[in-house]
Amino acid sequence: MDSNVYVFIMAGGGGSRFWPLSKKVKPKQFLSITQDGESMIQMTAKRAGLFTKNKVYVLTNKIYEQIVKEHLGDMNLILEPVARNTAAPIGLAACYVLKQNKDAVMMVLPSDHVILNTKEFKDTFDEAISLAQSRKCLVTVGIKPEYPHTGYGYIKTADFINSNSYVVEKFVEKPNYEVAKEYVDSGKYLWNSGMFVWRADVILSAIKECMPALYEKLMLINDSIGTPNERQVIDEYFPNLESQSIDFGVMEKAKDVCVVKAQNIGWNDVGSLKDWGDNFEGDANNNVNIGNGTLLNTTNTLCVSNGEIPTFVVGMDNVVVVNTGKEVLVCNKDKSQDVKLLVEELKRQHRDDLL
Amino acid sequence: MDSNVYVFIMAGGGGSRFWPLSKKVKPKQFLSITQDGESMIQMTAKRAGLFTKNKVYVLTNKIYEQIVKEHLGDMNLILEPVARNTAAPIGLAACYVLKQNKDAVMMVLPSDHVILNTKEFKDTFDEAISLAQSRKCLVTVGIKPEYPHTGYGYIKTADFINSNSYVVEKFVEKPNYEVAKEYVDSGKYLWNSGMFVWRADVILSAIKECMPALYEKLMLINDSIGTPNERQVIDEYFPNLESQSIDFGVMEKAKDVCVVKAQNIGWNDVGSLKDWGDNFEGDANNNVNIGNGTLLNTTNTLCVSNGEIPTFVVGMDNVVVVNTGKEVLVCNKDKSQDVKLLVEELKRQHRDDLL
Repeated sequence: MDSNVYVFIMAGGGGSRFWPLSKKVKPKQFLSITQDGESMIQMTAKRAGLFTKNKVYVLTNKIYEQIVKEHLGDMNLILEPVARNTAAPIGLAACYVLKQNKDAVMMVLPSDHVILNTKEFKDTFDEAISLAQSRKCLVTVGIKPEYPHTGYGYIKTADFINSNSYVVEKFVEKPNYEVAKEYVDSGKYLWNSGMFVWRADVILSAIKECMPALYEKLMLINDSIGTPNERQVIDEYFPNLESQSIDFGVMEKAKDVCVVKAQNIGWNDVGSLKDWGDNFEGDANNNVNIGNGTLLNTTNTLCVSNGEIPTFVVGMDNVVVVNTGKEVLVCNKDKSQDVKLLVEELKRQHRDDLL
Repeated sequence: MDSNVYVFIMAGGGGSRFWPLSKKVKPKQFLSITQDGESMIQMTAKRAGLFTKNKVYVLTNKIYEQIVKEHLGDMNLILEPVARNTAAPIGLAACYVLKQNKDAVMMVLPSDHVILNTKEFKDTFDEAISLAQSRKCLVTVGIKPEYPHTGYGYIKTADFINSNSYVVEKFVEKPNYEVAKEYVDSGKYLWNSGMFVWRADVILSAIKECMPALYEKLMLINDSIGTPNERQVIDEYFPNLESQSIDFGVMEKAKDVCVVKAQNIGWNDVGSLKDWGDNFEGDANNNVNIGNGTLLNTTNTLCVSNGEIPTFVVGMDNVVVVNTGKEVLVCNKDKSQDVKLLVEELKRQHRDDLL
């Protein structure tokens, strides 16, 4: 293990595509993808342990402090008083770690993804760490696209560096199907996994260059880190930080960005209830039935009935039914991304009782 | 109005195909088919009023005494201490009415059907009453089949009598699709509506001939009718009566059975949740949404969410969703008859909490 490596688990997200299975009080990263198994954040922490014993930090919202502790036990936490997307907490994390180690290398891992193949994951990140150290560049991890997915951003590769590493030509937003197909056919594009590796000083310089306003405010917090005022200063300044993603705010604008093409790590971003259900092994009718549901003449269906109210599904195919005991969702499996629209509507209606 | 006419509304059924919208404590006949409208039993009582002012009797199970009163107010009730299908209560009703009027004519009407066209209904039953009186036969009302329905019994007509009246050749059980198609194509078959007209003495003679054991026991009860012992005797003897349908026990075996072909009365037996929902006017997407449901990108769907738990339906087509707050049913609309199988399974499992 390289003692300069620090892992930052991004666990502040509230996600809405898993509603009502996951809600504001228990977002997706705290769900398991096997029956009675480890949660996604627990599996992420386990993978972090491949790179460092005790230099793992969880970046999360204050409101998740308790649930993170329930899932991970005693863990280094960087608590965000409010959600400010990813650029601000990553910048803060860089400040933290530079106080300890000026050669610190940061691995940034989302806490709500599935990665099936641990060895391949380790190999990919070893290469990314090595690249981030030797070239002093920002490194992102790309996934070889399996099909023209329209829900992911893409990374266009330019010059080959070595092994699985490439210079990034550009990042592109979620394409429509035709464009996605061109990307996949070209062989030059990778899915953007949202996993990164960089030296702490390099990402901080990039923030300074690409998001100078954020950088200035981070420097105000920086002085308090490690002092008795730390918590108070963060609580005061953090809410004023720009709410921007590290992708849009830095990666798309920074000068020297490279990508390591992940080799068969079995990555899945679990972007919808369908994706989540697909991780479970179905029965003979390809149904996944979790909780007190009863399925009759039904196929290819995900039923989660984890409240006190039983659920009965008759003669259906290819649906997602979630009955939490507080609300019921019935959704075409192929439209399960539209749950997001529903949640947006509930937010507009200020239905905080349901969110 | 013919003062010999008595109407018997059959309201003892517990029905299982409407579960969980209708349950043992509130079967289908107490549901409305319009939003905030009259219940099916109320509409039946209104139609009964076309034939007699105060000679309307409701035959129902003791457990429904209170709800019948809530729906119909002060009404003549014949209370069955236990459910014994239709032959026994009809026999008991005949005994009752013969005590009052030896020329009594009984109209027997299910309480859980929809009949849209009142005038045509009146004309059909006027003809049936007239036939039952002149010929002293058992009269059933048949419906001209609109398509090869496999959920109904059929009546095969023989000789034409007059107007819309025919001699019945035989009754046949629910056919499969091919047989049903032959029936419909032949022009000789009618749907069996379960509505009957006969003189009280004629049905009692037919019971004596076709179900002698039932007849004997009815005679034991008969002596007590009108005496202070009546209730006690019924409670004692009724549970020992044979549980058989009047169709199978008598109509299929009796000698002189005739049928009046109903002329466009708009009959619908509301045999499934789909049938029930089809009576409501849908919105622009042909959805019927009753209660606190929210439907997004959804079509041709019946959503009844009448508990405290809200229901959300996303990207679905042609489904029935019922959320009572105590259980949730999601059913393919075209498979809504299969709910019956589900209820049978719940009975096997003694899930009385759900039935």
